[in-house]
Amino acid sequence: MIEIAIMGHGVVGSGVAEIITSHKQKLYSAIGEEIHIKKILDLREFPDSPLADRFTKNFDEILNDVEIRVVAEVMGGIHPAFEYVSKLLAAGKSVATSNKELVAAKGAELLRIAKENNVNFLFEASVGGGIPIIRPLNQCLVANNVKEIAGILNGTTNFILTKMIKDGMGFDEALKLAQKLGFAERNPAADIEGHDAVRKICILASLAYGKHIYPDNIHTEGITNITLEDVKFAKKFDCVIKLIGDVKVLDDDRMDIFVAPMLISKNSQLANIDNEFNGIMVRGDCTDDVVFYGKGAGSMPTASAVVADIVDCGKHLKRRKFLFWVDSDNENILPYNESRTAMFLRLKSGDKAVAIERFGDIQVIAEGDECALITPVLTIGEIEQNLEGIDVLSKIRIGDL
Amino acid sequence: MIEIAIMGHGVVGSGVAEIITSHKQKLYSAIGEEIHIKKILDLREFPDSPLADRFTKNFDEILNDVEIRVVAEVMGGIHPAFEYVSKLLAAGKSVATSNKELVAAKGAELLRIAKENNVNFLFEASVGGGIPIIRPLNQCLVANNVKEIAGILNGTTNFILTKMIKDGMGFDEALKLAQKLGFAERNPAADIEGHDAVRKICILASLAYGKHIYPDNIHTEGITNITLEDVKFAKKFDCVIKLIGDVKVLDDDRMDIFVAPMLISKNSQLANIDNEFNGIMVRGDCTDDVVFYGKGAGSMPTASAVVADIVDCGKHLKRRKFLFWVDSDNENILPYNESRTAMFLRLKSGDKAVAIERFGDIQVIAEGDECALITPVLTIGEIEQNLEGIDVLSKIRIGDL
Repeated sequence: MIEIAIMGHGVVGSGVAEIITSHKQKLYSAIGEEIHIKKILDLREFPDSPLADRFTKNFDEILNDVEIRVVAEVMGGIHPAFEYVSKLLAAGKSVATSNKELVAAKGAELLRIAKENNVNFLFEASVGGGIPIIRPLNQCLVANNVKEIAGILNGTTNFILTKMIKDGMGFDEALKLAQKLGFAERNPAADIEGHDAVRKICILASLAYGKHIYPDNIHTEGITNITLEDVKFAKKFDCVIKLIGDVKVLDDDRMDIFVAPMLISKNSQLANIDNEFNGIMVRGDCTDDVVFYGKGAGSMPTASAVVADIVDCGKHLKRRKFLFWVDSDNENILPYNESRTAMFLRLKSGDKAVAIERFGDIQVIAEGDECALITPVLTIGEIEQNLEGIDVLSKIRIGDL
Repeated sequence: MIEIAIMGHGVVGSGVAEIITSHKQKLYSAIGEEIHIKKILDLREFPDSPLADRFTKNFDEILNDVEIRVVAEVMGGIHPAFEYVSKLLAAGKSVATSNKELVAAKGAELLRIAKENNVNFLFEASVGGGIPIIRPLNQCLVANNVKEIAGILNGTTNFILTKMIKDGMGFDEALKLAQKLGFAERNPAADIEGHDAVRKICILASLAYGKHIYPDNIHTEGITNITLEDVKFAKKFDCVIKLIGDVKVLDDDRMDIFVAPMLISKNSQLANIDNEFNGIMVRGDCTDDVVFYGKGAGSMPTASAVVADIVDCGKHLKRRKFLFWVDSDNENILPYNESRTAMFLRLKSGDKAVAIERFGDIQVIAEGDECALITPVLTIGEIEQNLEGIDVLSKIRIGDL
């Protein structure tokens, strides 16, 4: 019997408890032992829960219980999750978390503490919810040099963009619908401004390249400026607009990493990932493109990934898995204005001539009162310079995905 | 240092050797030790290979070398691969294979021998080439009851169907093009008649449900009867035709498993998987649909999956991974004529009336000299019975994927 604790009994935590209870036999076959929930940490009361006798408000009851070997951290937020997880790892307990904020902010430190104490810190659920991505990237694709990772990493923004693209719904209306359906929070800033996506691409980049990439100074652009006009022009160019988290390593070893809306070809495997779904493309030097698709959020999908990590912790109680990256000071990050891309522009028609003069072989894809243009591949800095003094209606990267 | 051997120096085997040589540093970081190729078994001579001094024609040199702990079997075919792998496992060596024929025919037996000898028998490369699927199914999705697995598991047939759908190319012409481009073999029977796909769906089913499913008595239908007319009518019904390997477990615990061409909705995630690419959808009760996409064959993608397994064997030299299924006599397989589906039919117009009379609420999607119909959901047996005496031009399952 493997005794575990769950910290947090919200959307994901209650799912973890439910899966462990309802999938007992399946989990037993996978690990050869029963997983038993000994404690659940939550400040609220759940008198009607069938697990009511396991609840505690006192973290120390988990920390000091020598029988508890594995803990699921599904509280969210950095504090006190970080302090709790640090103490648990230091006490020789393995931890499985769905907390992307924690992993993005403190991953290197927690992996170090885990290593020092010969326990595991796993976080499959922190990116892509129920989509397997951390383990495939770390194990199945281990024989590849990862050239690029690009993903639709946030379901809320993808839902909104899909409504704009497929139903011609405006941004505000689509956001309201997302909120109504439970795909967006009441305060949607973290999603629509790209902060959620940047945490996830940083986690993937840290894992793929072995150094912690902190989200703080990474260029992060949301979808709040995307209009129906942009969507319409994109369609004329046989593209859709998606919010993409992207990382690639350049020949000089610098890392080009950012979150931004992008025009991507309708033929891209990411173009057909719609609504609240997520998709992650990994470009390996041996495999070429591999894409993972599924529900990137939600109680049961996310909880099932946490439970898979609990099982893995249970299988590796006395030895560490090779999942590790070292700390860094983001020293190799390419400044965003050096990032190279073709750019989709919407300008007033009066500005077309000067744009053509400055950019050279710019491509005109539509014109009328305003015109839509595609610049040649240049650095963001060069593009900004060419646009000085021009009234830019829209400016969206073009992705080669 | 982990000493390994590679059996076979063909398309995949030479890729394995190349990756281990060229990705030395990456692999070292993943496992903490160097992987060293000590022997390569092949009956041919490779005097110009940089590894020329490692070649042997004598299997016993590998079997009896106590330093060799992990062996890659990339010879293909059942014999002598089966005899060699059995002996290696019995001698305490772990084996990684890309040989789907071997795993589909002898998986249960080899897993048993591996278990008895406390070593690993891994086969990530046997399904989906470079696409991670075995490990995600076995580990990441472990907290799910798998309701269904459906996949485009054969790149050759998917390439041919894509050319028929997108370019209006006839079957014969598309097959010739596939052969010219190296996507089809000179004798394409194993691919176009579905035998390759059935091995792969059997491996996935065995893994997901814990019992060996043997391909021999599984309904296997290829794409040789698919015509441009079928493709055209499918389009009218907003569908594409794909060769699908499918398995689901029914409420009475019987397994509905087969390989057959299917009409699937253009909105399905599998519909946009084109050309030589593979895609596998796993329906978990917690995750809902998760899809894996990538190159299902080819030297480097497949070899990189074998190398990932070699790394995993190297990490688990003294303990077994939980990857296992027991033998079975296919006793729970649903007879194909009890499998339930809606069916796309093309009949001569003169037969429409009698079809409507027999099927009841049949749906007419096109008519002229001939008519295209969709039957209600019935068993294959009931459909066959209703079609008695009718000249059926085409009959293709409709998939709910």
